[in-house]
Amino acid sequence: MSTAAPILLTPGPLTTSARTRQAMMVDWGSWDDRFNQLTASLCEQLLAIINGSNSHYCVPLQGSGTFAVEAAIGTLVPRDGKVLVLINGAYGKRLAKICEVLGRRFSTFETAEDEPTTASDVDRLLSADPGITHVALIHCETSTGILNPLPEIANVIAQHGKRLIIDAMSSFGALPIDARQVPFDALIAASGKCLEGVPGMGFVFARKEALSNAAGNCHSLAMDLHDQHTYMVKTGQWRFTPPTHVVAALHEALLQYNEEGGLPARHQRYANNCQALLDGMASLGIRSFLPEAIQAPIIVTFHAPKDPRYQFKDFYERVKAKGFILYPGKLTQVETFRVGCIGHVNQAEMRAAVNAVAEVLQEMEVLEI
Amino acid sequence: MSTAAPILLTPGPLTTSARTRQAMMVDWGSWDDRFNQLTASLCEQLLAIINGSNSHYCVPLQGSGTFAVEAAIGTLVPRDGKVLVLINGAYGKRLAKICEVLGRRFSTFETAEDEPTTASDVDRLLSADPGITHVALIHCETSTGILNPLPEIANVIAQHGKRLIIDAMSSFGALPIDARQVPFDALIAASGKCLEGVPGMGFVFARKEALSNAAGNCHSLAMDLHDQHTYMVKTGQWRFTPPTHVVAALHEALLQYNEEGGLPARHQRYANNCQALLDGMASLGIRSFLPEAIQAPIIVTFHAPKDPRYQFKDFYERVKAKGFILYPGKLTQVETFRVGCIGHVNQAEMRAAVNAVAEVLQEMEVLEI
Ligand SMILES: Cc1ncc(COP(=O)(O)O)c(C=O)c1O
Ligand SMILES: Cc1ncc(COP(=O)(O)O)c(C=O)c1O
Repeated sequence: MSTAAPILLTPGPLTTSARTRQAMMVDWGSWDDRFNQLTASLCEQLLAIINGSNSHYCVPLQGSGTFAVEAAIGTLVPRDGKVLVLINGAYGKRLAKICEVLGRRFSTFETAEDEPTTASDVDRLLSADPGITHVALIHCETSTGILNPLPEIANVIAQHGKRLIIDAMSSFGALPIDARQVPFDALIAASGKCLEGVPGMGFVFARKEALSNAAGNCHSLAMDLHDQHTYMVKTGQWRFTPPTHVVAALHEALLQYNEEGGLPARHQRYANNCQALLDGMASLGIRSFLPEAIQAPIIVTFHAPKDPRYQFKDFYERVKAKGFILYPGKLTQVETFRVGCIGHVNQAEMRAAVNAVAEVLQEMEVLEI
Repeated sequence: MSTAAPILLTPGPLTTSARTRQAMMVDWGSWDDRFNQLTASLCEQLLAIINGSNSHYCVPLQGSGTFAVEAAIGTLVPRDGKVLVLINGAYGKRLAKICEVLGRRFSTFETAEDEPTTASDVDRLLSADPGITHVALIHCETSTGILNPLPEIANVIAQHGKRLIIDAMSSFGALPIDARQVPFDALIAASGKCLEGVPGMGFVFARKEALSNAAGNCHSLAMDLHDQHTYMVKTGQWRFTPPTHVVAALHEALLQYNEEGGLPARHQRYANNCQALLDGMASLGIRSFLPEAIQAPIIVTFHAPKDPRYQFKDFYERVKAKGFILYPGKLTQVETFRVGCIGHVNQAEMRAAVNAVAEVLQEMEVLEI
């Protein structure tokens, strides 16, 4: 899997295949039938990943993943709704911030960054506040890489007759989510994550009935998923100019996803990457922040070496000079750095990255890990 | 100027150069210094086009052009502001729709689709309603290609002490706008228009003081230009994942823009394209909708042939088979089609497109033009 160096070991934008990038070498007319077919095929393939074509619509949206999350909340939570936001990291906090800016009533439940939300927490919270209409959850909280127990939480929410909104930005396509088994009103992801496209668009799987009833909810014209969907059904086109090259790249990336063997194969490759990374770093004495049981094979948070000669900036630049781009930590209390396991890379790249880290620590004379 | 066929004669997405598309063959880390430098260089070059580096900030935004327009209105018009929207086509109507959805008070002034708004209209309207705080205007109304007299209107607005928001989506980079002479609070454009990048991001030139005072105005988290700008100043990074490949393509397109000779050269090439198109179509008897005096060299609206054998869909497909993608009309009363003059094309392509149109009309046995 050779790509233009350096290799991105970051949770999106990430390393894409040359074939995916090559799909951007054509200019598409956004009004043209061939492009409409590309969009339709994209949505169909995306729905297939969650077995959702009977129950959900796929609504693509221009912009980054956060735009799609905001669009989902703005469109699907009625103005008099109330959202329970489950938080164990920065992206959960962002959900709460979105509710605040949009003027949707909300309450939050926060656990430590290494502690998944549990179904019994949610059960208790929903019992305590019958005013809650929607629950918003991060599937894999990318600030640490922690996995929240989605199916269990979804079931409890359904038992209470409430609606679930899932930010699956960094897990969709790699971790299994089956719309026939996990009830949800919205699941949100984006082009430049585990599908290995380039960044520039998100998409929302919206439960058909929920979306059909959502006219007039949205606080925004551009982010109104009901309008976006209605227009697309009527015309086959995006409502406003689509990021044509990004769409073409994602379509090509999905072809490769299916050729690779779809979700099980993608999951396995990332799990192997994650294991190779964890094993390699452990052999250097570098400790991962999360226990393995709650570690998603998406991104791993490592404790920074204790040695005063370790400085992230210097470490980062040196590892980059050897061909690998890492990611800073996102924890406030503990000094960490992060390494992504996703993208067009396999175990060989993960091992090479670990070797680069080993060399750099030696160069920096970092002894105390 | 050879590009992957067919050639797009549409007002964005449009035909880009191979060099611009080639810039998307690299994956960029969105946290990396090199990418931050790319963004900074982009904003600097964009500001230089309007001589705006002293007076304005350039705030890039993920998404299509409409996202940037909505962001500008949402961020820069205070919640108790009132917008006068000047309309002579579909994009003007969209400005009013945005105000409506955002809950900003507004009034509209609409002229016919072939009639520019005048400075004296605006003078009269502002005198009649002192409650107006902002005026929103489309520079080149892409639904017909009509040019509104921006400098005159801007001066009148300034005399009244009101604020101007300009949607210059389809004109920026080709038609001169000098921030030292034309007072405005916001000017909005996007990557995939006259700068000949690929679609996927917009940008807003916001008057420094106006943006600095805009904290808390915005109805949206993702579209808050004050937040976007503040974060970028602090970190050098985009607030949420940028469309890295689109940014790289726009940066490369700007290098070519400057190599070509900047705005005067771009303007001249498009003016030549437009003239070649008008002359060629006139020789076929096809009439343009607008008088030349108010026709911007961006996109031309032509009356559809009267012959009942003319059907746009068939015409479109046949011209496309010959290598050119045209655009449907956007007028409700008159049957028209549109041809763009912008993109990585020159007079040779325009003449070839006219030849293709001539051949197609003959094939279709369209006699009555
Ligand atoms: C779980 C999660 N939610 C939301 C986002 C935000 O996406 P974006 O940066 O594309 O706006 C991310 C980005 O990494 C994410 O991992
Ligand atoms: C004048 C004008 N305003 C706004 C837009 C909307 O831009 P987008 O389709 O990228 O949202 C366009 C698009 O062509 C335009 O020409």
